[in-house]
Amino acid sequence: MRAKELMDKDFVYLNCNDGVVEVSKVMEEIRRFTCPVVNDDKQLVGWITSFDITRGLREGNEKISEIMSGYEEIATVHEMDPARKAVLLTANNKFVTVPVVNDNNQVIGMVRACDIVELLSDLYDIKVYKLYEAMQHQLKGVTWDELMAASALVSKKTTGQKISAKEYEENIMHSTFGEAIWATGGLEKFFAGLISVGEMVIARRVGNARK
Amino acid sequence: MRAKELMDKDFVYLNCNDGVVEVSKVMEEIRRFTCPVVNDDKQLVGWITSFDITRGLREGNEKISEIMSGYEEIATVHEMDPARKAVLLTANNKFVTVPVVNDNNQVIGMVRACDIVELLSDLYDIKVYKLYEAMQHQLKGVTWDELMAASALVSKKTTGQKISAKEYEENIMHSTFGEAIWATGGLEKFFAGLISVGEMVIARRVGNARK
Repeated sequence: MRAKELMDKDFVYLNCNDGVVEVSKVMEEIRRFTCPVVNDDKQLVGWITSFDITRGLREGNEKISEIMSGYEEIATVHEMDPARKAVLLTANNKFVTVPVVNDNNQVIGMVRACDIVELLSDLYDIKVYKLYEAMQHQLKGVTWDELMAASALVSKKTTGQKISAKEYEENIMHSTFGEAIWATGGLEKFFAGLISVGEMVIARRVGNARK
Repeated sequence: MRAKELMDKDFVYLNCNDGVVEVSKVMEEIRRFTCPVVNDDKQLVGWITSFDITRGLREGNEKISEIMSGYEEIATVHEMDPARKAVLLTANNKFVTVPVVNDNNQVIGMVRACDIVELLSDLYDIKVYKLYEAMQHQLKGVTWDELMAASALVSKKTTGQKISAKEYEENIMHSTFGEAIWATGGLEKFFAGLISVGEMVIARRVGNARK
């Protein structure tokens, strides 16, 4: 995934000559704590945060150019950078927004912390049964019932608690990948559990074939 | 994980009687776009964002109480709520911060979007070889070399590109779970790939045992 696939294109360009008071109203209206300042070619030249605006309003500054951070202080990502770069910038510097630029240094979007949260959170939200479907698809010829029976057995072995194949199926219909990795104690353990299931299914199949 | 384990305890309480100008300076200094307003018992009574401050400065309001959002407009999480609740609030409402309260409705922390990004991003940062180690541990008796050889074969089958076991090993030493799921096209596909590897290892083992 590239930065440009993660960015929000719904943002407002500011100009150096824009008035501080006017900009404060715009930022309130669009609910954005940060805005890029660009030149006539939409190239990034500065950066405004609500902190600059409150200071500017207090001190009676008139133009954005008087209060903005200069270009050299702005962390950007290129549209073709891995989305991960924007995520790391946000996480490590506690940024609310990272501007995305193209080859001409034109601002074409903004990666926002809340959008990253939504994205990462969505990935965690995938239902566990979807992973089972992928597993069934991969382990050709294995039925869903066989998979559930094997899973119930593995679960019993790991947790010590008896669970029927039917109950297991109900669990995975509702639980998400995120919940499952918290519940099992980490990604490695979650995967190890799924692999055990695959292993058990294959062992049973091999056993049946030999009969 | 509970909300209280995710929250940031480093925040500033505001009081209804605090002056707008003073608060604007504090928020600039601590770099916070949002702050909770509390009563003398530190119970949540209001909420201030930089948008309230810029409006207040423009309109000449004096006290925080004149510009804050009221209690009924604030979305909170309880300290014992699943951290997930704060994540969903942030993702769905594009919040920058969600206040965390205890049983007495006292604000005890703030869950910030950038902290959530850091947390979720860390989980994705686990190296792929860690997952392979878990897999090897699970598939008892399988050597690391067998696992790498099988993976190289599966990779060739999926991508059409030849890769040696050694090259495969180098790849997974550096790449993360996050990169792998982007590269393979999703969690299900990544997982299906791992299952294929496990399947191939077992098939080879069974084949060898029969010789």
